[in-house]
Amino acid sequence: LLAKQLTKPKEKITIYVGEVGPLWSYPESQLDCIVADPKKGSKMYGLKSYIEYQVTPSTTNRPVNHRYKHFDWLYERLLDKYGSAIPIPSLPDKQVTGRFEEEFIKMRMERLQGWMTRMCRHPVISNSEVFQLFLSYRDEKDWKMGKRKAEKDETVGVMIFSTIEPEAVDLDPIEVEQKCELFSRFTKSMDDGVKDLLNVGQEHWKRCTGALPKEYQKIGKALQSLSTVFSTSGYQGEATLTDALTYAGKTYEEIAGLVAEQPKKDLHFLMETNNEYKGLLGCFPDTIGVHKAAIEKVKEGDKLIAANKITQQEKMAMAKRLSTMSYALQAEMNHFHSNRIYDYNRVMQLYLEQQVKFYEMIAEKLRQALGQFTTM
Amino acid sequence: LLAKQLTKPKEKITIYVGEVGPLWSYPESQLDCIVADPKKGSKMYGLKSYIEYQVTPSTTNRPVNHRYKHFDWLYERLLDKYGSAIPIPSLPDKQVTGRFEEEFIKMRMERLQGWMTRMCRHPVISNSEVFQLFLSYRDEKDWKMGKRKAEKDETVGVMIFSTIEPEAVDLDPIEVEQKCELFSRFTKSMDDGVKDLLNVGQEHWKRCTGALPKEYQKIGKALQSLSTVFSTSGYQGEATLTDALTYAGKTYEEIAGLVAEQPKKDLHFLMETNNEYKGLLGCFPDTIGVHKAAIEKVKEGDKLIAANKITQQEKMAMAKRLSTMSYALQAEMNHFHSNRIYDYNRVMQLYLEQQVKFYEMIAEKLRQALGQFTTM
Repeated sequence: LLAKQLTKPKEKITIYVGEVGPLWSYPESQLDCIVADPKKGSKMYGLKSYIEYQVTPSTTNRPVNHRYKHFDWLYERLLDKYGSAIPIPSLPDKQVTGRFEEEFIKMRMERLQGWMTRMCRHPVISNSEVFQLFLSYRDEKDWKMGKRKAEKDETVGVMIFSTIEPEAVDLDPIEVEQKCELFSRFTKSMDDGVKDLLNVGQEHWKRCTGALPKEYQKIGKALQSLSTVFSTSGYQGEATLTDALTYAGKTYEEIAGLVAEQPKKDLHFLMETNNEYKGLLGCFPDTIGVHKAAIEKVKEGDKLIAANKITQQEKMAMAKRLSTMSYALQAEMNHFHSNRIYDYNRVMQLYLEQQVKFYEMIAEKLRQALGQFTTM
Repeated sequence: LLAKQLTKPKEKITIYVGEVGPLWSYPESQLDCIVADPKKGSKMYGLKSYIEYQVTPSTTNRPVNHRYKHFDWLYERLLDKYGSAIPIPSLPDKQVTGRFEEEFIKMRMERLQGWMTRMCRHPVISNSEVFQLFLSYRDEKDWKMGKRKAEKDETVGVMIFSTIEPEAVDLDPIEVEQKCELFSRFTKSMDDGVKDLLNVGQEHWKRCTGALPKEYQKIGKALQSLSTVFSTSGYQGEATLTDALTYAGKTYEEIAGLVAEQPKKDLHFLMETNNEYKGLLGCFPDTIGVHKAAIEKVKEGDKLIAANKITQQEKMAMAKRLSTMSYALQAEMNHFHSNRIYDYNRVMQLYLEQQVKFYEMIAEKLRQALGQFTTM
């Protein structure tokens, strides 16, 4: 009985077939976590400084502390273990200079949050031992032991496919190849589309924070200058006009400020989401590459049989493994699609909402400026 | 009795002193005219083509036809006769190429209308024989006779001051000089302010019709491309997202169009008004120059008396003439100020009204785009 308990339970990743096709097995309640409260820590009697983030999972609600390098360690483990089947997006860039600047820390935290949220949302990742360890280790000893164990994990690379068990009939290699082609084309064209939007967005960002507000400021200044000139006329009864002109000028200066601040409120999120997807899409060629190599192997199967290099049985086993890989890829694509629909729907709504508010605020400010003039 | 009727009544321009200071004598109802209906005419058996405009004064309500060169003739007459006392703004530029293009004809008509309106509004100009002739000649014969008479008019240059009769006590030359300095400074700084606003406006015009709509178009295209990619996913139930994304993309393309068209609806009028004022202000240095020369003459008066070159009486006459000139300049400045207040008040209201509408329309379009997305 005791011996039985000591035996490590075999890892098993199930795939169901749902309405939209093969699906990972999703947990009933979705894991979530909050990355917050970045604090400067130090080591070796203050010789080495670092930033530590507080990570609080929704399961335990108990915060654990992690440095960037711990996130990086987690990323490496996930990549080793799941990378062949699941695209693991890179962490936000490593950076050496300016690491302790507030603006940078805030941005990195936001991106680590984005990365963690994406990992939490993934049913396979979030359920993995290493991810659970990262989120809810009890103490230093627990963490260190868990680390050592994860580093020794032998289920890496294509080995992951041996743990995947699709609850469905085996797929024909031809169908597998067609599906793979479709995914390859889709991820490639989405990668182009995302990069295009990022380029346009970057250009727009520059204009909104550079040339455009500068121009509104100039308009504002020109109106105010004219008002100042008018007020020296010595002519009676033009105070209403000069006051209104000054007000209009100041309004355009305010608009300059609004324009320059707006990208942080809307374009920023659209850019971040697209950046995340750019990263994610960058992982697909590798994942799909593994898949394509397997397809080629199976295609060669007949030749190998003819050459008596493998048995019919071995060929069947290869096709079965390929079918499993395809189920995994399909489950992953379906996961990707449902997240993509959710993410783009959400970020576009946020973007448009903020844009509406922005233009309404400008209209309102100008309406107030208009009200300063007298109707003649 | 008959002889008495034939005697030409002496021209007389009265100046009253009102609340704001010296004023021209304003008519009870203001003259107005409409410049419309440009038609291509020809002469010399079709060898020479020209554009004829229909000018309808509010007094007779009977249209008369005039070519650009007639307006130019009128301008020359007004400049000769009144130029020393009243700044006569130049006509819209002569242009040789593209004279018959619709866009150009429309723009010239608009500017001739602006020029005529300004002349109609001027109590001295609008009351003058030559201006009345231009607006309401009965037939070709009447026009030709009137033209000949106007060209022979000897009340030109500084002679105009001899017809001006201020109904007020003579002014001290020192006060005259102070007022002249004030006007000189004001018109100069207003000239700077107007030019500044024109430069800023031109730059803004370029951006609104060039780089900015191009950028909105790019945003629109990028969103639509992404939508097209999404629609190839093969994933079920994302039609709402792809439709909404396409709608949002098209909305940004529409916004590009709105942005590019907007300057014609608001900035155009702000620019035209400032262009008119630039022209008007460009006339002041001459008018003020005549005035300053007269001031210098009167200042030299004492020396001339000492040198027995003029009598005390002659010096008094010079001071009186200067006083008259000053009343004229003050009346003109007051006329300028009241028009300036009216014009800038009106054009700023128009500008802001259109700007409010513009931003409201964009907000409304974006709100509709937002409504295409589903709340999750």
